[in-house]
Amino acid sequence: MNIEVCFTPQAYNLFHKPNTVVVVIDVLRATSAIVTAFYNGVEKMIPIASIDEATEYKKQGFMVAAERNGEVVSGFDLGNSPFGYMNNKVKGKTIAITTTNGTQAIEAAKQADKVIIGSFLNLDSVIDFIKNENKDVLFLCAGWKNKFNLEDTLFAGAVAEPLIYKYGFDSSCDSTIAAMELYNNAKHDLFKFLANSSHRNRLAKLDLERDIKYCLTPNQCPVIPVLEGKFLVKAN
Amino acid sequence: MNIEVCFTPQAYNLFHKPNTVVVVIDVLRATSAIVTAFYNGVEKMIPIASIDEATEYKKQGFMVAAERNGEVVSGFDLGNSPFGYMNNKVKGKTIAITTTNGTQAIEAAKQADKVIIGSFLNLDSVIDFIKNENKDVLFLCAGWKNKFNLEDTLFAGAVAEPLIYKYGFDSSCDSTIAAMELYNNAKHDLFKFLANSSHRNRLAKLDLERDIKYCLTPNQCPVIPVLEGKFLVKAN
Repeated sequence: MNIEVCFTPQAYNLFHKPNTVVVVIDVLRATSAIVTAFYNGVEKMIPIASIDEATEYKKQGFMVAAERNGEVVSGFDLGNSPFGYMNNKVKGKTIAITTTNGTQAIEAAKQADKVIIGSFLNLDSVIDFIKNENKDVLFLCAGWKNKFNLEDTLFAGAVAEPLIYKYGFDSSCDSTIAAMELYNNAKHDLFKFLANSSHRNRLAKLDLERDIKYCLTPNQCPVIPVLEGKFLVKAN
Repeated sequence: MNIEVCFTPQAYNLFHKPNTVVVVIDVLRATSAIVTAFYNGVEKMIPIASIDEATEYKKQGFMVAAERNGEVVSGFDLGNSPFGYMNNKVKGKTIAITTTNGTQAIEAAKQADKVIIGSFLNLDSVIDFIKNENKDVLFLCAGWKNKFNLEDTLFAGAVAEPLIYKYGFDSSCDSTIAAMELYNNAKHDLFKFLANSSHRNRLAKLDLERDIKYCLTPNQCPVIPVLEGKFLVKAN
């Protein structure tokens, strides 16, 4: 089974192929929020690309999360802070969600054979899920507005390494090598490694250090959200 | 002055801005060949995107270089092996050139304020050129068919590091951080670091180890090719 890493949603079409599990990654913070939501009992989520669609879902009575540039869009229930999903109000609910980058990446990959949601919060669950599927894997980093980002790449490296060195996957892809090299440089202190990264600084300005620390802490939420039609649901 | 790194020609439009020097990088082998050509007395080069244009220039009596997938295209004078440009036949000539990735990157950047050609062969000359311009810098990696590659990224890191730590440039771009991290992992033995990279393996199959070793040896050709209209010429 082969591994590839795609650094931005813009490039997804160059990587699309059949019989592939796509792992969508937006560590800061959409996929961390989604994983946290399912771990806290959310029933379904509906990833959507635009604010217009979000408004439509809101009118229909859904709970709706909408984030742009790190902040909750005015008039919506939630943003993409994982802490927003840690309460009883979300339990059993179906929540529509749109974010700056993460839901755009899900949108780009929706034709893939299987789409799952990855973050450090469900790291080991992602590794287990992939090794039990008999498929190629594509890590699709959400990036920032179609530019490369570090934190999503580090997560791709964190998953690729055991898949290759323990579970017999291979990769002929330079971005996989880069992701593993960067993860090895970073793994002893992810928070410190990301000190100069663009998105950590963007969020630090919004006083979100607590979010960042939580999002970089592995295995807090051992669940796998998987795309089924237009819904994200918890994989069995 | 700010530094950014763009990993593929596909993404160039996201980075385009005025008053910026774009350094086009295709270490294996287009920009290494171009730098070698100018060092060996070529007068001008005409970078072109398609084989059709190459055929047209050939009909007009130009010497024409055409490479696709690592090999000289049948019927043309040269490919992108730097060794093809180390002889008296090229001296004083104007050569049209089209390659799989490198000339596509030049094409993508042609609206930039200034476009220069970078490779390990002219590493220190590139650093000197940039620090003498009073402009932002974008490193445009040619990659492989719009996918990320390692060797072009390493060169971006090799130039970015002294610009930032010695000459007061800054960067808020995660790809600059990644390029410098990867270069630091690789710099003690670039050849060995690239042992598993996709393009090194592609070229090794074509028996081009000698080309690769040459292309990774810094400062063999202290010249700067710069784009002026449709021509590449030697900067003063």
